[in-house]
Amino acid sequence: MKKKHIYIYSPSSAVRDKAAFRRGVKRLQALGHEVEVDEAALDTHQRFAGDDATRLAAIGRAAASRADVALISRGGYGLTRILDAIPYKAVAKAIERGTEFVGLSDFTALQSALLAKTGAVSWQGPAVGEDFGAEDGPDDIMEACFDDLLHGQGEGSGWRVPKRDAESLSGFRGLHGATLWGGNLCVLASLLGTPYFPAIDKGVLFLEDVNEHPYRVERMLDQLRHAGVLARQKAVLLGHFTGARKVPHDRGFDMQTVAARLRTLIKAPVLTGLPFGHVPTKVLLPVGAQVEVAADGRDVFMVWGHRHAH
Amino acid sequence: MKKKHIYIYSPSSAVRDKAAFRRGVKRLQALGHEVEVDEAALDTHQRFAGDDATRLAAIGRAAASRADVALISRGGYGLTRILDAIPYKAVAKAIERGTEFVGLSDFTALQSALLAKTGAVSWQGPAVGEDFGAEDGPDDIMEACFDDLLHGQGEGSGWRVPKRDAESLSGFRGLHGATLWGGNLCVLASLLGTPYFPAIDKGVLFLEDVNEHPYRVERMLDQLRHAGVLARQKAVLLGHFTGARKVPHDRGFDMQTVAARLRTLIKAPVLTGLPFGHVPTKVLLPVGAQVEVAADGRDVFMVWGHRHAH
Repeated sequence: MKKKHIYIYSPSSAVRDKAAFRRGVKRLQALGHEVEVDEAALDTHQRFAGDDATRLAAIGRAAASRADVALISRGGYGLTRILDAIPYKAVAKAIERGTEFVGLSDFTALQSALLAKTGAVSWQGPAVGEDFGAEDGPDDIMEACFDDLLHGQGEGSGWRVPKRDAESLSGFRGLHGATLWGGNLCVLASLLGTPYFPAIDKGVLFLEDVNEHPYRVERMLDQLRHAGVLARQKAVLLGHFTGARKVPHDRGFDMQTVAARLRTLIKAPVLTGLPFGHVPTKVLLPVGAQVEVAADGRDVFMVWGHRHAH
Repeated sequence: MKKKHIYIYSPSSAVRDKAAFRRGVKRLQALGHEVEVDEAALDTHQRFAGDDATRLAAIGRAAASRADVALISRGGYGLTRILDAIPYKAVAKAIERGTEFVGLSDFTALQSALLAKTGAVSWQGPAVGEDFGAEDGPDDIMEACFDDLLHGQGEGSGWRVPKRDAESLSGFRGLHGATLWGGNLCVLASLLGTPYFPAIDKGVLFLEDVNEHPYRVERMLDQLRHAGVLARQKAVLLGHFTGARKVPHDRGFDMQTVAARLRTLIKAPVLTGLPFGHVPTKVLLPVGAQVEVAADGRDVFMVWGHRHAH
């Protein structure tokens, strides 16, 4: 394996679990990579990894790093408040030069805005602390996908739709020439109506969330629907929606209810089981890339091909 | 006092606290009113006060009731998912005929959409259960405001800006000819980008919320800001933001931080202390009405004058 250069920075919340962060850095080093940690990666200001200027400068340094991958320390909250000051052109240029930007959760804000402003492709994927620094070691699939990205070998991803949702695949003939986009539903919904929301027609929209009750997930999906966004997609892929607590008065209202109702309201297929979200086993997904999706029984394959010759 | 006709219905979540609901109905009857309870007011389907068709029919019956006031049993969740099926014209006609629609929280969705679609004025105000059915009796100020509405005597409202925010009034010369609008921030933000979000220029926007951490409040305010909504307002009024739990890693990030930052980002004054929200002491506020706002020291007066000659 060729040694790769990984730049780690903190654009969102302050790193609280420093032990996990250090484990993550060590794990990446143990894999043989050159790991460069941004000077402000462990800064703290209120809830944030440094004040707004500090985090904006960190994004700039990540863009200037000429690393193979710029990886976030963690998500949390912090990017939506600085969307009008992010150096999008510098990030897009860095991507053109071969630096892949990887992150998730709050990072959805930067990625979506970047796509809206420049069309540049970035990756939904792991964070240092929660993924590489996981107490019982990083997830094998996540690590394999990350390695594929580093070596320019990732061409796609596959997963099996859960049995209970098999029907959602009936009549699905596959699709191609669609733009993959999405990420954290809550963050994405918080961009609606703003210039940072990507105007993607005939796309493949993937969504995940954490600690959001199904009624809130439904309200956000309905916002996308009422805004006309869902009617313009070729497919909606649902990843994991974790951490929400059921309450007795839900009386059967849950994520399955939400997905089932959505299927009655939009034409595009709503496919579940995407291995992505606030879970250890996550694939890497190129936000803004052209994809093909095919299905064989309950097995779904999404292909994006090579993007860079590293 | 003239006996008034009050129609009670449930457009959102199922009534769980039936004792409070009954206390509320009795209280309104004890005040001498004719209280008509919608046939589906206590229905339950999943989390909702009946399925979508049931709640839509209830809204239709409220509009057809020819009551003086149509009052919600409670808020919760249920209106955003049926925004494309609400009989807006029927509600607007009922308002023209003299039925005042009153509610809050989830009801913000119906009121905002109604304003966007028809321009009709409705009221942010109490709900039956939590307000009239409060265990230690309804709040005096709320009840007085409600009585003013019933008898067409409400002309405005006044409050004192907290001492810590006195500075926000410096340079405030008052305003007039502005449209008052707003309500629950979370519900309002969930309409952004959709046809149900009112396009109000030079308005007075009031906001409240419950159980939303300050970082989520800030994210929603930033969504309004990034969407250009806040730049188009003459004033922003903040009511109560209650129920959120602070966590140690907030490290000083709170609602005061959020409001102080907002003041640095928008030109319109951000005035706090509005007696409205998920609190017992709430005034009634006409969504869509023209208002004047004046200040004397820390005392703010908002005037909307008579709307109907009852």
